[in-house]
Amino acid sequence: MTTHHMETLGHFKITVWEEENFQGKRCEFVMECSSIMERGFRKIRSLKVESGPWVGFEYPEYQGQQFILEKGDYPRWEAWSGNSAYRTEHLLSFRAIKCASHSDSKVTLYEGENFQGRKFELSDDYPSLQAMGWSTKEVGSIKVISGAWVAYQYPGYRGYQYILERDRQSGEYRKYSDYSTQAHTNQIQSIRRVQH
Amino acid sequence: MTTHHMETLGHFKITVWEEENFQGKRCEFVMECSSIMERGFRKIRSLKVESGPWVGFEYPEYQGQQFILEKGDYPRWEAWSGNSAYRTEHLLSFRAIKCASHSDSKVTLYEGENFQGRKFELSDDYPSLQAMGWSTKEVGSIKVISGAWVAYQYPGYRGYQYILERDRQSGEYRKYSDYSTQAHTNQIQSIRRVQH
Repeated sequence: MTTHHMETLGHFKITVWEEENFQGKRCEFVMECSSIMERGFRKIRSLKVESGPWVGFEYPEYQGQQFILEKGDYPRWEAWSGNSAYRTEHLLSFRAIKCASHSDSKVTLYEGENFQGRKFELSDDYPSLQAMGWSTKEVGSIKVISGAWVAYQYPGYRGYQYILERDRQSGEYRKYSDYSTQAHTNQIQSIRRVQH
Repeated sequence: MTTHHMETLGHFKITVWEEENFQGKRCEFVMECSSIMERGFRKIRSLKVESGPWVGFEYPEYQGQQFILEKGDYPRWEAWSGNSAYRTEHLLSFRAIKCASHSDSKVTLYEGENFQGRKFELSDDYPSLQAMGWSTKEVGSIKVISGAWVAYQYPGYRGYQYILERDRQSGEYRKYSDYSTQAHTNQIQSIRRVQH
């Protein structure tokens, strides 16, 4: 076991169950899981994050809708899914978010693609970007300077979730399809830091 | 018209529609509405907050589930409802939140009722109270020192929402039924400031 493995073991732990309310088949993870079906699960219906944060994905191989999973108990799918219109009860892969820092997070939003147009640098949570002065409902591109962020389709941290990390593609999300592969919309109306 | 009215007109504005995506019958409000049915609406299916924040309620007379409404567009009920388990599509009354201050908000959480037991003073947003060091999933009582807050049943700002204001009952929520009248649970796993 390498030093890297040891560190990972110390920092991240998630337990998943096949049934709601932490019932039925269970499994603990300290590393990422690219497909829960390969562990003999049909689906995940409840989970506990003992140390995080993690990001869950609708499909295997980290594809589809994203679900931010910070420390705490998630007894049913609606505890992690913010998008009840497109009602998926799938959470089939997940991985740790290693660069989260609640106290040192910076992100710049740009009106246009490729970091063009009006911009705004944030280091705090904003449940309403419009209230902060952002004039549209859309964000064209995003540069994460430090930490990890989660952006949402609707105000008040609702709707589709987009996890944005300094560690992924150098923190550069040049067009909306870089962050919103699953949603086919560039609407972002709230954004917040991810908590370690 | 009194001075108080003039101030209210300048600070708060919400527009509601009877159908999704801002269609059908519409009405603008700059003051609270204790029953949308009295305005001839059957229900509200979409809304825009032009200046806020507001709090919406499931039932007339500010009863039932609470929904925080900050500046932005809410094209469907899932944009404001964080609780898909108990699927209510009702939002039948609403009022402005006058004491919100994103930059000056303080709240103290207590383990026991009547401000007893272990306590924690917060002035920032916490998507996971457990990650911050709060050892249980419950909060016994809450004292709002300044501003307005919204507490949530689940981590990551999901599930039942509880609006907590300095201006209401002197900011003192002595037992869980003071803040959670509709939910019959004292589970709080995340909390954040309300944005003006």
